[in-house]
Amino acid sequence: MSFLNELQQLLGDAGLVRGDDLSAFETDWRKRYVGRALAVARPADTAQVAAVVRLCAAYGVTIVPQGGNTGLVGGSTPDDSGEQLVLSLTRMNRIRAIDEANLTMTVEAGCVLQALQEAAEARRLLLPLSLAAEGSCMIGGNLATNAGGTQVLRYGNARELCLGLEVVTAQGEVWNGLSGLRKDNTGYDLRDLFVGSEGTLGIITAATLKLYPEPRARMTALASVPTLEAAVELLGLARQRAGSGLTGFEVMNAFSLGLVRKHYPQQRQPLEASPWTVLLELSDSEDEQHARTVFEGLLEAALEAGLVTDAAVAESQAQSNALWHLRESIPLAQSEEGLNIKHDIALPVSAIPAFVAETDALLEAGFPGMRLVDFGHLGDGNLHYNVQAPEGVPAAEFLAKNEPAINSIVYDQVAKYAGSISAEHGIGRLKREELAQRKDPVALGLMQAIKKALDPQGLMNPNRVI
Amino acid sequence: MSFLNELQQLLGDAGLVRGDDLSAFETDWRKRYVGRALAVARPADTAQVAAVVRLCAAYGVTIVPQGGNTGLVGGSTPDDSGEQLVLSLTRMNRIRAIDEANLTMTVEAGCVLQALQEAAEARRLLLPLSLAAEGSCMIGGNLATNAGGTQVLRYGNARELCLGLEVVTAQGEVWNGLSGLRKDNTGYDLRDLFVGSEGTLGIITAATLKLYPEPRARMTALASVPTLEAAVELLGLARQRAGSGLTGFEVMNAFSLGLVRKHYPQQRQPLEASPWTVLLELSDSEDEQHARTVFEGLLEAALEAGLVTDAAVAESQAQSNALWHLRESIPLAQSEEGLNIKHDIALPVSAIPAFVAETDALLEAGFPGMRLVDFGHLGDGNLHYNVQAPEGVPAAEFLAKNEPAINSIVYDQVAKYAGSISAEHGIGRLKREELAQRKDPVALGLMQAIKKALDPQGLMNPNRVI
Repeated sequence: MSFLNELQQLLGDAGLVRGDDLSAFETDWRKRYVGRALAVARPADTAQVAAVVRLCAAYGVTIVPQGGNTGLVGGSTPDDSGEQLVLSLTRMNRIRAIDEANLTMTVEAGCVLQALQEAAEARRLLLPLSLAAEGSCMIGGNLATNAGGTQVLRYGNARELCLGLEVVTAQGEVWNGLSGLRKDNTGYDLRDLFVGSEGTLGIITAATLKLYPEPRARMTALASVPTLEAAVELLGLARQRAGSGLTGFEVMNAFSLGLVRKHYPQQRQPLEASPWTVLLELSDSEDEQHARTVFEGLLEAALEAGLVTDAAVAESQAQSNALWHLRESIPLAQSEEGLNIKHDIALPVSAIPAFVAETDALLEAGFPGMRLVDFGHLGDGNLHYNVQAPEGVPAAEFLAKNEPAINSIVYDQVAKYAGSISAEHGIGRLKREELAQRKDPVALGLMQAIKKALDPQGLMNPNRVI
Repeated sequence: MSFLNELQQLLGDAGLVRGDDLSAFETDWRKRYVGRALAVARPADTAQVAAVVRLCAAYGVTIVPQGGNTGLVGGSTPDDSGEQLVLSLTRMNRIRAIDEANLTMTVEAGCVLQALQEAAEARRLLLPLSLAAEGSCMIGGNLATNAGGTQVLRYGNARELCLGLEVVTAQGEVWNGLSGLRKDNTGYDLRDLFVGSEGTLGIITAATLKLYPEPRARMTALASVPTLEAAVELLGLARQRAGSGLTGFEVMNAFSLGLVRKHYPQQRQPLEASPWTVLLELSDSEDEQHARTVFEGLLEAALEAGLVTDAAVAESQAQSNALWHLRESIPLAQSEEGLNIKHDIALPVSAIPAFVAETDALLEAGFPGMRLVDFGHLGDGNLHYNVQAPEGVPAAEFLAKNEPAINSIVYDQVAKYAGSISAEHGIGRLKREELAQRKDPVALGLMQAIKKALDPQGLMNPNRVI
């Protein structure tokens, strides 16, 4: 009996998608990669996932695990061989348990992130993973890529929110590591090995996540700062005065907000243009009044110290949302302006001003007139440092001609300042070669040894990451 | 040339300890294991550590890495073969860098934890790893065992405080992973694999740690609670009202505090004996007055809800210290009372009341008169659940006769409630066989595959953990 027939028998009609219309599974989110799948398996439960993997192992069929398919590095779509099986977790979307006293929820990989946020909210709890794709990304993919987002400053990446995993190994065995424990020193940290491994070591089928009490109030402010140095000092001051109440600290350069002004003129910008603008968010376990008092004290001190030249504190939840909306409109506004060359980089916070000053100058010297969309999660040292073609120059042409040279300048600078070429998006296919060249060779050797040990047949998402 | 001669040449006189007086390196903290070392290597820097490992690999000599040698599971002392090399990191005790704007410090493995706390404090920063042995334990060992302690509720275990590592692999290569980044998704999480691996995969030689702004005020309160259920509810209420300001939540049963009363009568206990007593700590980024207001609101609400029957808020830092001192005196008081059978277990917080009620009853039925020293970090679900011989029964005799049977009851109950048999102390030699029997077999298989992949010669701390 052939592989596909056995698969059909295993999964039934609901569990196997074949034929011509697989394009939704074959094309990545940014439409950079269009592949061709052998078929799409849609198992209904963990036992079926394990059975599919065992079948693939027997036939030597390689597997591309897929959740919401919103990844930005081409990690969740098949290559163009037509020989890879896409294993979609979309049918595994149950919340298995919520334990309010333990502040945990146990959920299947195919749950949409926003559905989980809402399930927590319904119990006045907070699942603090939040990112642009939350309406369609799935928690299995969030964990497989160690997603970041807007709440990392206080709550950490997806990794830090995960207490336990259920994983189907490359041998088709099920590791039940669904722990709701805050402390467990019984052997190697397998959980964190699978988190962030982008489906190359096994398939995450379920997870136990941390929850938090919902803060009583959230409040946002916008502050004009004269320099990036001032922004870094403001961050230090905010951490001192607000402690872990500081849940957001985003930075935007003038060009970023200018693009929003140009393409979305209906969005009110409460402050005049400034070299840099910071969005601060406080979460408060007391009330709005208390949050406002902390904000006012902080901003007064910052104005006095010359770190801030102007500021606006949101007067309502609606105003807070509008300030966040400004920040979130930057990725869309830059698309309106045309294609650009994206860099999702991380640096020690202390190194950011020097990195940006130097790299800006190098790029301006090499590519006069190029425009920098520079914004990101300054509190985490994570910049989205994107290079837009000069005014009037066709973007596609500029990219085709200059992308490798620009990447090379930016990534050399990242290396100089001990940064990362992928802060939150992962490696996938997009940065695999870059990683092979730039990662510490001892680290690469360790990674290869682990890959070979856990997936000796090379079945799991081959040619991604390493 | 023989191994020891080559080692001598490599390390010089200061770097090699031989001869009769190695007992400080050969005996574990609790004096359960007395081994015999071939010699003790004391390399001065990372390059020497790597050279020692390469030499050991060439001669097939196995290595036992050792820091402050304060571990509780026999993981850092040699066996009695006389053939193992103890590799002591004590000479590598430099603070390499403190980056205040990035809130990080980069330190060598042999730094004593308390020295690091003090170096942070001198800059008004906080290194929030704190545990009983902090005056002599070393950060390399803290990371190799993923140490816990009293601040886990807010700041996490040693793992969560570590951003990057420098590691000498089992092949004697140096992996430079000393990252000060909060976000870095460039491949497998090697850091967390070495953290908690107890020296069985490689040797941690340096680390970059997270720092925090020092809180402006810390305040402690003691509360009498009628039941463990009430303690769990109080925890929920405290997390709601204090958010991440809640930095400590310890529980003690009446017998624990009774032992302190008996053996240290000079220590004032501000509350009358109660079935359970909770120690709460708030850290506040504003001031003492604010912390007091939050405490008073919380305790009033808890009194009203019947969760608390009596409470005392510390009036000064000295009083706060005295309350912590009560809690910290329990381990000493139980030693005064005689040997007991220790269990360092973790459970989902929600399962603790049922676990304790059931396990208490099982033990009482099997071992009438036995006495339970039950205390621990309730906020983390971590109990030190220790069984003391009945009044008047010689402890050594009771232990010799009953330890395996008692362990079996306790660990079966831990399994029933999806807990951990080692919350914060690790596995070492003490719990290795227990782990082999009780850990999920798929997880054990993954661990063995990783061990074999990274240390194929089996040189690194053999027969520990797995």
